[in-house]
Amino acid sequence: MEVTRRNFKDCLNTVYSAIEEADFLAIDGEFSGISDGPNVSALTNGLDTPEERYTKLKKHSMDFLLFQFGLCTFKYDQTKSKYITKPFNFYIFPKPFSRTSPDIKFICQSSSIDFLASQGFDFNKVFCNGIPYLNQDEEAQLREQMEERRNQHANGVGTPSFISPSSKGPAHVPEEHKDFINKVIEKVETLFTNSEKTLDLEPCTGFQRKLIYQTLNWKFPKGLHVETVETEKKERFIQVSKVDEEERKRREQQKLEKEQEELSDAVGFSRVIHAISKSGKLVVGHNMLLDVMHTIHQFYCPLPEDLQDFKEVTMCVFPRLLDTKLMASTQPFKELITNTSLAELEKQLKESPFKSPQVETAEGFHSYDTAQEQLHEAGYDAYITGLCFISMANYLGSFLTPPKAYIPARSKLVEPFFNKLFLMRIIDIPYLNITGPDLQPKRDHVLYVTFPKEWKTSDIYQLFSAFGNIQVSWIDDTSAFVSLSQTDQVQIAMNTSRYAESYRIQTYAEYIQGKQQEKEKLGQTPKTWGEDSWAKSHYTASSTSAAFGYSRALRKRSISPVQGEQGARDSQITDGWSNYSYPDSTGSKKMRTDALNEQTNTEAVESKTSEGWLKTADSSDTAGLSPIPDEAPEGTNEAGDADGTVTWQQASSRMHGRKGPKSKKKQTEAAESTTSLFEVPEVW
Amino acid sequence: MEVTRRNFKDCLNTVYSAIEEADFLAIDGEFSGISDGPNVSALTNGLDTPEERYTKLKKHSMDFLLFQFGLCTFKYDQTKSKYITKPFNFYIFPKPFSRTSPDIKFICQSSSIDFLASQGFDFNKVFCNGIPYLNQDEEAQLREQMEERRNQHANGVGTPSFISPSSKGPAHVPEEHKDFINKVIEKVETLFTNSEKTLDLEPCTGFQRKLIYQTLNWKFPKGLHVETVETEKKERFIQVSKVDEEERKRREQQKLEKEQEELSDAVGFSRVIHAISKSGKLVVGHNMLLDVMHTIHQFYCPLPEDLQDFKEVTMCVFPRLLDTKLMASTQPFKELITNTSLAELEKQLKESPFKSPQVETAEGFHSYDTAQEQLHEAGYDAYITGLCFISMANYLGSFLTPPKAYIPARSKLVEPFFNKLFLMRIIDIPYLNITGPDLQPKRDHVLYVTFPKEWKTSDIYQLFSAFGNIQVSWIDDTSAFVSLSQTDQVQIAMNTSRYAESYRIQTYAEYIQGKQQEKEKLGQTPKTWGEDSWAKSHYTASSTSAAFGYSRALRKRSISPVQGEQGARDSQITDGWSNYSYPDSTGSKKMRTDALNEQTNTEAVESKTSEGWLKTADSSDTAGLSPIPDEAPEGTNEAGDADGTVTWQQASSRMHGRKGPKSKKKQTEAAESTTSLFEVPEVW
Repeated sequence: MEVTRRNFKDCLNTVYSAIEEADFLAIDGEFSGISDGPNVSALTNGLDTPEERYTKLKKHSMDFLLFQFGLCTFKYDQTKSKYITKPFNFYIFPKPFSRTSPDIKFICQSSSIDFLASQGFDFNKVFCNGIPYLNQDEEAQLREQMEERRNQHANGVGTPSFISPSSKGPAHVPEEHKDFINKVIEKVETLFTNSEKTLDLEPCTGFQRKLIYQTLNWKFPKGLHVETVETEKKERFIQVSKVDEEERKRREQQKLEKEQEELSDAVGFSRVIHAISKSGKLVVGHNMLLDVMHTIHQFYCPLPEDLQDFKEVTMCVFPRLLDTKLMASTQPFKELITNTSLAELEKQLKESPFKSPQVETAEGFHSYDTAQEQLHEAGYDAYITGLCFISMANYLGSFLTPPKAYIPARSKLVEPFFNKLFLMRIIDIPYLNITGPDLQPKRDHVLYVTFPKEWKTSDIYQLFSAFGNIQVSWIDDTSAFVSLSQTDQVQIAMNTSRYAESYRIQTYAEYIQGKQQEKEKLGQTPKTWGEDSWAKSHYTASSTSAAFGYSRALRKRSISPVQGEQGARDSQITDGWSNYSYPDSTGSKKMRTDALNEQTNTEAVESKTSEGWLKTADSSDTAGLSPIPDEAPEGTNEAGDADGTVTWQQASSRMHGRKGPKSKKKQTEAAESTTSLFEVPEVW
Repeated sequence: MEVTRRNFKDCLNTVYSAIEEADFLAIDGEFSGISDGPNVSALTNGLDTPEERYTKLKKHSMDFLLFQFGLCTFKYDQTKSKYITKPFNFYIFPKPFSRTSPDIKFICQSSSIDFLASQGFDFNKVFCNGIPYLNQDEEAQLREQMEERRNQHANGVGTPSFISPSSKGPAHVPEEHKDFINKVIEKVETLFTNSEKTLDLEPCTGFQRKLIYQTLNWKFPKGLHVETVETEKKERFIQVSKVDEEERKRREQQKLEKEQEELSDAVGFSRVIHAISKSGKLVVGHNMLLDVMHTIHQFYCPLPEDLQDFKEVTMCVFPRLLDTKLMASTQPFKELITNTSLAELEKQLKESPFKSPQVETAEGFHSYDTAQEQLHEAGYDAYITGLCFISMANYLGSFLTPPKAYIPARSKLVEPFFNKLFLMRIIDIPYLNITGPDLQPKRDHVLYVTFPKEWKTSDIYQLFSAFGNIQVSWIDDTSAFVSLSQTDQVQIAMNTSRYAESYRIQTYAEYIQGKQQEKEKLGQTPKTWGEDSWAKSHYTASSTSAAFGYSRALRKRSISPVQGEQGARDSQITDGWSNYSYPDSTGSKKMRTDALNEQTNTEAVESKTSEGWLKTADSSDTAGLSPIPDEAPEGTNEAGDADGTVTWQQASSRMHGRKGPKSKKKQTEAAESTTSLFEVPEVW
């Protein structure tokens, strides 16, 4: 269903009930751009920490506009043994709803706009008929403004700047307006004596109208209703009506209701997000970190500085998230799925060993045909994201004894995938863990190298030629991370560099320490996120999650990813990557403990699948970065396999291109050696 | 004529010849926004200096996109006694033309977008079919890149990073690729011995293709043509063809021509600006400062820091400009025209004493109907701007003896209006003088006041209540200019403030001095605009201007606006505003002297109109700012009389609204007292 400003109010109840009845929701957003940074490779360094990545995305992506929001609700029909879907495609635009509403500015990135244009995106629908929205602060502000205005009118005073020492006294009428105001008073006095019911004053300036309001409210506190009316020519004049007290109250009431409706209209699309949030339903997305960040930023509140605070806000807005890209990159799917872009994933999940999910579009809704792709319409993308989730969830049922063909969204089998958002192109941290501390891979074999800006990847390769295969992750023109294949070579590399003049090598630990010290020097102490400034999470151990419990051990594991009980699989590991250290305790100190859940979830998981799943696939994004051909005279159309990832890649390769052959070279070589060198770490 | 990417190449010759044959051109631009500043009133303080205003516009307006460019050419047909018009409406969008082209980001302002949407603007046409463009630097860069790539191919090497010590030697092939490359060499050797004409290699990575290029170019310098081809699946592979030397050269030539065409396509719309620039024709616009700034910024070069440098660049790009808003605000029009917004101006100029111009749309062009307004389509706005100019120019003919009904664009009668761009809402400087130093009004009666941020306009009024009417121009929350009606009161005001603690008063001169010192402290010495870095002006005393000369005195007057010979009119002046001081000599040191013109323009002007025209109208923009009614719950549709000015006002009032009643108050009072207090200064 296409929802614009024209039909938003009429659709809202349909949306609400679709959310309310759903088993799970799928979402997707389309943006006016991805990154405003000068250099996307710096934005996505393969060895970013989660904090760094969050900070970069916040800084370089939030000024774009989320202008299409796809929501697809999925409700399982037991009798039909299929899901009934309700897809919505919302067009979003911050139309200033009045002259006092915020005038939003947003950035457009021409590559993103051009890409959407090539996909048939309808910009006119966005800009002409997009649904407005306010975040919570703006809503509160507007509400306050309205109340203030009401109070002023009630008190018979204008704006505070006109309040005279005694606010009950007469308005201060500047000399030059005294004649004008006195004439108005005369006219109103005449009105009281004659049989007319209303009196239309001459059009006048806003300042004069203000004086009239103040004067009349003070002089005639009862028996009058004063209102500003507009002529066809948009001239404003004041209409004074004789009314009894009852009529006056009725009119005030009418006005109040009208204001409430205006406020509600202004909050607009944010009401849909509130409903999703309040429902506590599982929200599924594909590669959804940016979607989540944009949704919160645009409809809820400006993003907090600190990653930990972001995680808490996210849990308030979306209590349960599932990222299908992360799921597809994890055991048991990683070995079966070669390409985790949304379009490819959807295709592969139709084929054995997976099964096409049984779905039916609800009556009155547009029925999407997955054979005729409509990728990059947010509603369609949300729809197929939901399909992917169903296929993968059901596949998990095949591991049960006896196997089950249908696994509901609230099944404990999918819980290990909850609240882990895919991190693009970080070599050793596959996801952002929203409900706990992040993985802290050991980076003992990583060196931080600084060098003259003339250096190219080949120079770095030459420098480290004695150490076999290396992996280079450029940070900027004069620095890069170099990952050695064996940790024990790190000390040798450090020793050989001791007397070097043109370059400098630090261990990763030294680098991180240096950064920390720099931060402390700048007086940046970690901010605390005032608990009272945020609404408490809407999601407090809902009855569904209590009913379908999971073992306490499993739950714990999803919070602290490194547990002792992994001996069996350690043997599979071929490099030094498997050691994730425990994050220091401060990282988790503010996390909710879900005490309720822990008490009730005592049911043990009886399934051979409860371990060994969350092994991520070899990072297809990193590999996808590599071969950037540079003899090609023109950009090829990468639309075919494009999801958010590819748009990003396009931007990236183009950016690099601008720097000339040098940076292209860097990317090509660095990326090519990625996959061959390392296994992506185990997560479980 | 609507011109998009689809028909741009086909239309280009039509555009060129329309420009070439025209008597004058009219232009107009539509932008994705006006101001990204937090506060428009700060952006347009009524006492800005021209330098301040330029700096503000440059800083806060250039990140928007000029996405529709209107050009209307006017050619006078002697036999028909009417103008033949050719209107063009260009849709502009920086579509990245290849993966190495710049990925432009631009800002959209929701109020501007919403306004254009309400006018039926077609955003899809812009974003899907907009014509690309490059500025001069980007064009040069692209040309260089292409040449570099060509040279590399010719030399048989890849990117410089792969050049081995002797660039004629073999490529350095990394160990892991040696097998692969050796197999390729074998295959090519086989190709030479068999009867096949071409050999298709397997798809491979960009890095591998690079190695192949290098190796084959080195090993087989003759007899081969190596090319990257793309499969339908967008996979790239290398095709090797046996060719004789002639065939090889032919193919190289083909490639070269294709590249030239690509370059030309990428330069795109900028070619139209180059043609306008080269023609040296009079370019007419309405309130055109932002149009000129955007056009230069987008299609020519980033705007210089310094106003003086901007003026010089402007003269290079647009050697002769005329702003119809400035013309309409100036004698002899100011007394006849009450509203200088484009739509109103066009209406008034159809009525007595003016005459509707006789125009006819050229065959094959869309004929606009001025009765059915299509305002805010750039092509239409350019068209009616041209009509306004014709009406006003012809009106000047009525002052001649004998009167003339038709005054050509090259007439000396219109020259006084050349190169003066309307400055919105500056109280005492009506225009930016592109070909000379700007007016420097005396601001002896102006005080700079700082105060606590709680202060409102009423507090300032109260403070100065002893001094009669004042005018307040807010700078920010804690400072404002206060203009007294009489200069001799300044010292009294200063004296009374001596012991004040909550506020501080400085004279305008002290304020300017303080600012200057601050600047010097920051080490900001005025930059010089390297002459060699800019193309010389295309406009070097064209034959038309030489033929229609003007008196040396008149010319001089247009450079130094204050001359002694004004005694007669001084008596009309009712306040102290008429004294403009001479700008200091540094201001004009870099101006071109137009020596040629001065020598040839000895023909005296025989007309009673040669003096007394350039009196500007009472600043309708300032007045237009005033009555912002704030009881009105919703924005009214200000489209009716909207041109650039009104869009700005909308933004302004909305911005103010956000600050709450306080700032609204400021604006209302301040503006209301403007017109009553001061005559706008004489310019001549």
